[in-house]
Amino acid sequence: MQFANRIKNLGTESAFEVSHQAAMWHAEGNEIFPFHLGDLNIPTPRNIVDAMNEAIKNGKTGYCPPAGIPELRAVLADDVGRRRGVSYSSDNVVIQPGGKPVIGKFILALTNPGDEVLYPTPGYPIYESQIEFHGGIAVPYIYKEIDGCFLLDLDEVKSKITRRTRFFIYNNHQNPTGAESTQEEMEALAEIALEHNLWILADEAYYEIRYGGVSRSIVSIPGMLERTVILYTFSKKFAMTGWRIGAAIGPQKVAETISELNVNDESCTNHFIQWAMIEALTGPQEGPRRIISILKERRDTATTLLQNIEGVNLSVPNTTFYLYPNITEVVKQKNFDNIAEFQTEALKKTGVAFCTRNHFGRPIPGETDYYIRFAYSGIDTQDIRKGLSRLKDFFDN
Amino acid sequence: MQFANRIKNLGTESAFEVSHQAAMWHAEGNEIFPFHLGDLNIPTPRNIVDAMNEAIKNGKTGYCPPAGIPELRAVLADDVGRRRGVSYSSDNVVIQPGGKPVIGKFILALTNPGDEVLYPTPGYPIYESQIEFHGGIAVPYIYKEIDGCFLLDLDEVKSKITRRTRFFIYNNHQNPTGAESTQEEMEALAEIALEHNLWILADEAYYEIRYGGVSRSIVSIPGMLERTVILYTFSKKFAMTGWRIGAAIGPQKVAETISELNVNDESCTNHFIQWAMIEALTGPQEGPRRIISILKERRDTATTLLQNIEGVNLSVPNTTFYLYPNITEVVKQKNFDNIAEFQTEALKKTGVAFCTRNHFGRPIPGETDYYIRFAYSGIDTQDIRKGLSRLKDFFDN
Repeated sequence: MQFANRIKNLGTESAFEVSHQAAMWHAEGNEIFPFHLGDLNIPTPRNIVDAMNEAIKNGKTGYCPPAGIPELRAVLADDVGRRRGVSYSSDNVVIQPGGKPVIGKFILALTNPGDEVLYPTPGYPIYESQIEFHGGIAVPYIYKEIDGCFLLDLDEVKSKITRRTRFFIYNNHQNPTGAESTQEEMEALAEIALEHNLWILADEAYYEIRYGGVSRSIVSIPGMLERTVILYTFSKKFAMTGWRIGAAIGPQKVAETISELNVNDESCTNHFIQWAMIEALTGPQEGPRRIISILKERRDTATTLLQNIEGVNLSVPNTTFYLYPNITEVVKQKNFDNIAEFQTEALKKTGVAFCTRNHFGRPIPGETDYYIRFAYSGIDTQDIRKGLSRLKDFFDN
Repeated sequence: MQFANRIKNLGTESAFEVSHQAAMWHAEGNEIFPFHLGDLNIPTPRNIVDAMNEAIKNGKTGYCPPAGIPELRAVLADDVGRRRGVSYSSDNVVIQPGGKPVIGKFILALTNPGDEVLYPTPGYPIYESQIEFHGGIAVPYIYKEIDGCFLLDLDEVKSKITRRTRFFIYNNHQNPTGAESTQEEMEALAEIALEHNLWILADEAYYEIRYGGVSRSIVSIPGMLERTVILYTFSKKFAMTGWRIGAAIGPQKVAETISELNVNDESCTNHFIQWAMIEALTGPQEGPRRIISILKERRDTATTLLQNIEGVNLSVPNTTFYLYPNITEVVKQKNFDNIAEFQTEALKKTGVAFCTRNHFGRPIPGETDYYIRFAYSGIDTQDIRKGLSRLKDFFDN
């Protein structure tokens, strides 16, 4: 058997490997504290489930248009536009089976083999994977921790741009760091995009997951609406990661092309779930409010406990459901020179499962600090306490 | 804006365009008889919906493994293997958001740009589109009508094979013709695959949609199991096209690679629907039996009426829910020299919406007969009568 050459360039989301590792350890009879996967253990709001059943009762079990049902496209255009201070119509919206499909489809639509694509590192590993899989050159730009904040080095970003650069992936409300751009940083990025005629894939999966302050989108900066595709997902806000529904939102011509990719790839996204998403966006909002309040309590609990551990340096983001502490001192003190081995040892000693910097794209030569990522979306406050208290014992001794 | 070059090679499923055309005509106040789309207007069996709700109640709203839940993979492996007389395990099964995604993923996994891929024509138009989109060379092989049967010309198939041929797509229980291979034809194809070391994508979407006789799969011929990936879908058997769930079933190494594509493309297929599919396969089978009995009644009604029209030559397939009559005489008699114009005129004169040969891949130079395709899956018997009676009037006058 001989696979296509492109398969060699296919990466993965190695967080799933930590899941597997944790599941194996659990199967051996050990207690597990799941901080590794950005999943939610909170029920999807009941009104959404009810709306889905209503749609099934109304016969919405057949195909729907490849770009999604017009009713949902209109409602989502309005919702996303309003929250960003821009104007979208349904022509700008293409429903997808999740937010993730937007990454590959955007790349397929806009880059030729050999084109360069900027992407953040550490960052969601599928960026790197999909760029390279489809023949592009993945060019990382770095989030650097300075005085407890993760910032972009704009000079570094500029230095990475060549005449082959086609677009950059921008994940404000960033996974794993939780970083958010200041208005100045975002405007500088927009200026770079204009100057070099770059497209932007704005991964805004966590735009509405926040515990204070206000989210901003690069599309609200003049000139950006015309060159940006937003990756939108219902997964986090409504605690429905396993339902698989999201959207690509951008200029009409790109939306039309992505819709043609839908025709080829999966015909359409689940029909009756689309009707339920109209209820999610326009019905009572107690559900998402409750989800945020649960997540905030978990964040506050986890940050207090982590900040209380000697050698753990943690900035507290107001967005995402991730914490990305610098644990360089701990790793060195415990005589590890490899974060993966440290992670495995921590799992076996404490049952606490987490990801490390290595799960977020290839490290850049010269990185010397050690980071790990905690997701607090899939673990109750009580278990957060128990798990992190065990982790403190392990880190301290 | 500049799209990637590959977008120029992207085809479409133009049956959706007939849908659009019919919807427009309907919006102008005209009655429509929808024979154009392979969708079902039959409710999904209730026990499946109930099982889905039970899964939601049990918290199956988060992510599941990219290849699907192990429980469904095992049950499906058993079901598909048993019906084909071969042995599959869950390692051979990768759940997909529909049957269609298997086409693109199989091509991405196994063909390099410039590789040649054989595909049937007339046939499902996404084959041609996906082969060319990913840089392959689409090489058609023809279903020819001989004495009212659609057959392959095995010498023609052989003549199309070069040293660059990588695999062939085989859609037994064929859309649009309804053709089925004899055991001899299938064995001859298997021999060709062995001799030239070809992979097979066996699109078996209609394997269990039949009204008499027994379905056979090429995987049951010795040597084929190791080189065949089955495109499986729940869509037709359980009247759930809009749910979007299917599977790729093949050798473990290919399954693993397709699973890595899942990680990159959509993380996983809807989680709670997977639990419902266990009920679909192992629960009471009244639902699918009722669906087949409804479809059979429609087929019998439609074939009787069509065979009653002067100039319509129709072979009656025992499988699929399509009829593919030769209407060359009618088209010529009515002085059309273009099947697309004839189709539009028929829609406007009668409200009957159907696809034509042109919706099933690029015609081959030298084709002189005119064919149209009726799907009877989305239209009740009463409307079949009414629509086809109007069509008879139009054809006759």
